[in-house]
Amino acid sequence: MYGAGDVRVEDVPDAKIIEPTDAVVRVVLSCICGSDLWPYASKPAAERGQPMGHEFLGVIEDLGSEVRGFRRGDLVVTPFVWADNTCDFCREGLQTSCRHGGGYGRDTDGGQGEAVRVPQAQGTLVKLPVGEDSPLLPSLLTLSDVLCTGHHAAVTARVSPRTTVTVIGDGAVGLSAVIAARRLGAERVLLMGSHTDRTDLGREFGATDVIAERGAAGVERVMELTGGDGTHAVLECVGTRAAIDTAVAAARAGGVVSRVGVAQDAEAPMGFAQMMRNLTLTGGAAPARAYIEELLPDVLDGRIAPGRVFDRTIGLDDVPKGYRAMADRQALKVLVRP
Amino acid sequence: MYGAGDVRVEDVPDAKIIEPTDAVVRVVLSCICGSDLWPYASKPAAERGQPMGHEFLGVIEDLGSEVRGFRRGDLVVTPFVWADNTCDFCREGLQTSCRHGGGYGRDTDGGQGEAVRVPQAQGTLVKLPVGEDSPLLPSLLTLSDVLCTGHHAAVTARVSPRTTVTVIGDGAVGLSAVIAARRLGAERVLLMGSHTDRTDLGREFGATDVIAERGAAGVERVMELTGGDGTHAVLECVGTRAAIDTAVAAARAGGVVSRVGVAQDAEAPMGFAQMMRNLTLTGGAAPARAYIEELLPDVLDGRIAPGRVFDRTIGLDDVPKGYRAMADRQALKVLVRP
Repeated sequence: MYGAGDVRVEDVPDAKIIEPTDAVVRVVLSCICGSDLWPYASKPAAERGQPMGHEFLGVIEDLGSEVRGFRRGDLVVTPFVWADNTCDFCREGLQTSCRHGGGYGRDTDGGQGEAVRVPQAQGTLVKLPVGEDSPLLPSLLTLSDVLCTGHHAAVTARVSPRTTVTVIGDGAVGLSAVIAARRLGAERVLLMGSHTDRTDLGREFGATDVIAERGAAGVERVMELTGGDGTHAVLECVGTRAAIDTAVAAARAGGVVSRVGVAQDAEAPMGFAQMMRNLTLTGGAAPARAYIEELLPDVLDGRIAPGRVFDRTIGLDDVPKGYRAMADRQALKVLVRP
Repeated sequence: MYGAGDVRVEDVPDAKIIEPTDAVVRVVLSCICGSDLWPYASKPAAERGQPMGHEFLGVIEDLGSEVRGFRRGDLVVTPFVWADNTCDFCREGLQTSCRHGGGYGRDTDGGQGEAVRVPQAQGTLVKLPVGEDSPLLPSLLTLSDVLCTGHHAAVTARVSPRTTVTVIGDGAVGLSAVIAARRLGAERVLLMGSHTDRTDLGREFGATDVIAERGAAGVERVMELTGGDGTHAVLECVGTRAAIDTAVAAARAGGVVSRVGVAQDAEAPMGFAQMMRNLTLTGGAAPARAYIEELLPDVLDGRIAPGRVFDRTIGLDDVPKGYRAMADRQALKVLVRP
């Protein structure tokens, strides 16, 4: 990506081992993330392109001398940041703050490409017990980011069978949050979103109510549906100021707003009024690595099918069109098969 | 209180039973709260005075026909808001959001007086197993607010033996938060405050380090003391914007900022940067009623002595001087013996 709206497919140097803790993964399946749309909308034009893509699964082609537990030929999925999975933050389940971690595309290749050098491969990668031709690959790919991100929202919001839930946003993360909230036992899940095809999928994922209204009208609907109280948990999966305003207003006293949409503001509406209601604001960049082992069995046995968020598949040459389709809301989430 | 700086001692109608769920409590011991200083600094002048005081203990003088479990003559303490202690919010431990609750001084008498009508007396009051002449009364009075408020900060920040803690503010709540954090097992408690007499008491309460610097310099000290990471929990016991800015900056990635100081802003600095660090902002008005039974034994057997925050005792006639002394920081917290 050279700047807003400017995505180019280019030849770059081949991915290769640099550190003994690296692996090289040939990408089998990758995708475009909702968070990629923020720079696609606003990144200043630059001389040098930024490698893109942080969600992928693929086959290990080469291994550094210090990587244990993997072999060439293994099919693996990566969380969207790498991590050693041994430091104190990782042991606490916060691999996004790993002391030796980092993000794809900055000092490495991007996942929207043919192959990627994966630093800290032993701590980062998770082996997948299926073949390259498995029909489960799209759902397994969501372990890289959106399923784990929705799960993070639900976990940090303490969703349980006793909590009512509002999910704000009908993008891939919002829909994943619906899956996650139901999976954690929530019986009432209100999905706020205005794209009918997406909220229809949200209903199939388990949303019990859909709220098409936004802003104050949307909050009013939440209140109507909850006896005027709001819900115990609100999972904010958009990131805009309007979304966080809605989230805080829709939360029940003593409730939790968990946000996993990339926050666009430096502030949040958590002042005197929210304090008196004992609201909690939590969430953040999801430590996907912490959740993959827990979620993997449910994907493998088909209990959840998060891969249904993908509604278009393209090759590498069409990646610029894929960005356009997602930015124009013509596609929900685009798979890339190199 | 008729307005900023204008506190008057006046005769008002005697407290009496209005609802069958009321009790009338003769005040034995009351006090002035740090939160009373906000209106004392800024309340617009009014024709009608506002009864003040929400922390008191005393003797039941009269009981409504529906109040069970108490007798005239019982010594009782009240949390700073009344609550039925049976509604869904109360059962969840959020008595500050009770469906039939309220605050002293609005539709009732204030605690800085001779007697108070206590609504929802059965759910609100807690019997104290000591006499009116017990030397424990000052410490028992802190169950009304500051001890429970400091405890709420520590509980919502998930303080445990595994967490490092920063307490921001050396007022009565901050010092109570030090007691609470130590009581919950924290081994490292950094107290930020610039009044040496108060931070000395904080050390006696268990603070392991005192940081006199404020703002960026204070945060730098926290970082020096924590290997650059910040602490897992930050208990914000002031309420100003500067305090919450410091709190967020002093928190470790994945950490919790719990605020119990009355927030003076409508916003909090919880944006993109804090989201990427997975910070949680929680806390709020403390449901003191939820904590009194848990904390009471520790006060009774002297394991904690929160009453040491009181450094002056006055009669009712001197209440205006008590406000002045607290506002001028000449007194930490003022006891009122009617």
